[in-house]
Amino acid sequence: MEKKYAFGVDVGGTAIKMGLFDLEGNVIEKWEIPTDTSEQGKNVLPDIAAAVNKSMQARQIQTEEVQGIGIGVPGPVDAQGTVLRCVNLGWGRLPVAEVLSEMTGIPVAAGNDANVAALGEMWKGGGKGHQNIVMVTLGTGVGGGVILGGKILAGSNGAAGEIGHMTVNTHETEQCNCGRRGCLEQYASATGIVRMAKKRLAQDATVTVLRDIDPLTAKDVLDAAKAKDAVGVELLEQLGNTLGTALARISCVCAPEAFVIGGGVSKAGKILTDVIQKYYKEHVFPDLGDTAIVLAELGNDAGIYGSVKMVLE
Amino acid sequence: MEKKYAFGVDVGGTAIKMGLFDLEGNVIEKWEIPTDTSEQGKNVLPDIAAAVNKSMQARQIQTEEVQGIGIGVPGPVDAQGTVLRCVNLGWGRLPVAEVLSEMTGIPVAAGNDANVAALGEMWKGGGKGHQNIVMVTLGTGVGGGVILGGKILAGSNGAAGEIGHMTVNTHETEQCNCGRRGCLEQYASATGIVRMAKKRLAQDATVTVLRDIDPLTAKDVLDAAKAKDAVGVELLEQLGNTLGTALARISCVCAPEAFVIGGGVSKAGKILTDVIQKYYKEHVFPDLGDTAIVLAELGNDAGIYGSVKMVLE
Repeated sequence: MEKKYAFGVDVGGTAIKMGLFDLEGNVIEKWEIPTDTSEQGKNVLPDIAAAVNKSMQARQIQTEEVQGIGIGVPGPVDAQGTVLRCVNLGWGRLPVAEVLSEMTGIPVAAGNDANVAALGEMWKGGGKGHQNIVMVTLGTGVGGGVILGGKILAGSNGAAGEIGHMTVNTHETEQCNCGRRGCLEQYASATGIVRMAKKRLAQDATVTVLRDIDPLTAKDVLDAAKAKDAVGVELLEQLGNTLGTALARISCVCAPEAFVIGGGVSKAGKILTDVIQKYYKEHVFPDLGDTAIVLAELGNDAGIYGSVKMVLE
Repeated sequence: MEKKYAFGVDVGGTAIKMGLFDLEGNVIEKWEIPTDTSEQGKNVLPDIAAAVNKSMQARQIQTEEVQGIGIGVPGPVDAQGTVLRCVNLGWGRLPVAEVLSEMTGIPVAAGNDANVAALGEMWKGGGKGHQNIVMVTLGTGVGGGVILGGKILAGSNGAAGEIGHMTVNTHETEQCNCGRRGCLEQYASATGIVRMAKKRLAQDATVTVLRDIDPLTAKDVLDAAKAKDAVGVELLEQLGNTLGTALARISCVCAPEAFVIGGGVSKAGKILTDVIQKYYKEHVFPDLGDTAIVLAELGNDAGIYGSVKMVLE
């Protein structure tokens, strides 16, 4: 029977995004189910299997018509699709691809959520037309994904693309969530941007709209920069320098064709990619000055697109 | 006719290393020919073709018995085997694989010399048993090569693995050969080690054996560290910190199984890998603390081994 469909699944700590796609990557239907994290998350995969079955029954789709199920999870996944742990779900080591495939009778490919989102952006988003990209997701933390030759690079212990934990300041005294000090995440995540803003405000009494905002958010900082508030501009330049230098370092390693910038912070738009590009060009190996630095386009759907792309190979 | 042989070629600025191998990677014969850089290096490929033909004739090897010729060149090479330029040879853009293949009637694969050396070390040297390694060559400059899934990562403009030009100090005032400031090469190459030593000696009058040596070399600095000379030890720690931090940054991107340290500076041996490892562990994402950091084993032969490996795929 001809293969016509694929499912994309993006498991988050509170909700699981699901999508039914045709094999060209068009969404036929997308929906969410709650993430049941009780009992070490033992219901997560059965719930996904049930949701897939329900969708297939409703549309009279045969198992043989489904190319596969792709699934992104919030934890490290090795190149064989084994999840090493998912703290948010209560999972330890779990061969997710194998288990979900047994439950559904459908081939399954699993990947880390940030890596899968990067693959989605390469396929249908900001990185369209490229086969080699690095995505950097600026959210509560900083995530990353490295796509080479159109495929996710998993790396040892599934830890390739952990861009958020690249050391950017060896003199940092505060600790990152990972236990180290001076990680990119401490400066360039939404949380990090606020942290740096507060440090700047405490330095002196320079007049700025940022003093009157409580609670202060990363969006406030970037909005202030857009409004040409002096401290806002200074913080944006600092952010651009930190990110541009980090991206230049990444280029020395894998020389991607494009960087895709996503996550909540990237809603600031072109003002952000422009300032990153400025500092990137200043620090990067001269042959790599023209690497594209673009905005992500798929938002929260990047994960289901990338999941589907994994099973189309 | 059964394939039995492959040639490995490593083109340097003064000599071209050549090797005839069986398909298990055993050297049958190795020799050198001079590099003729006259007239924009137009004789280099004809000279190589002639050397290959001569070796085949001497051993009565038929063209059909040769699996291929692999060639490493001192310049950027893209994933298709096109050389983008080789300043030392006088070459501009040149489809080396295509041209040499036409001259010899044998399939040719071309790669950047540092990348090819990394592949050689993965296959038969310090990285044996791994498929994913990063090699860092500490010579006059700092070279690098990224091997993923057993293959060279070429990257955009053939610039993947340009580890020597990773920014390590954004406050550097002296210029790197690449035109930027603060590249790893300025601190961790043989030249960079001497530069840092001289800066240290100029700082104060601390007693050290290094003051009496002229001209000072990187080997002198590392020998002083081995002899527990206080300034020598201090410089070795500084070098370990610089390299360990750079390797930790590389791990965040591609999470290799092993780092292979080669080049003249690596002759210092275990004292060097130990100090790199110490600072690597301090800065790397916790899941990647166990990455092997090993010495290269093939010396100047890494290039011919790696060249052969390219054509065995």
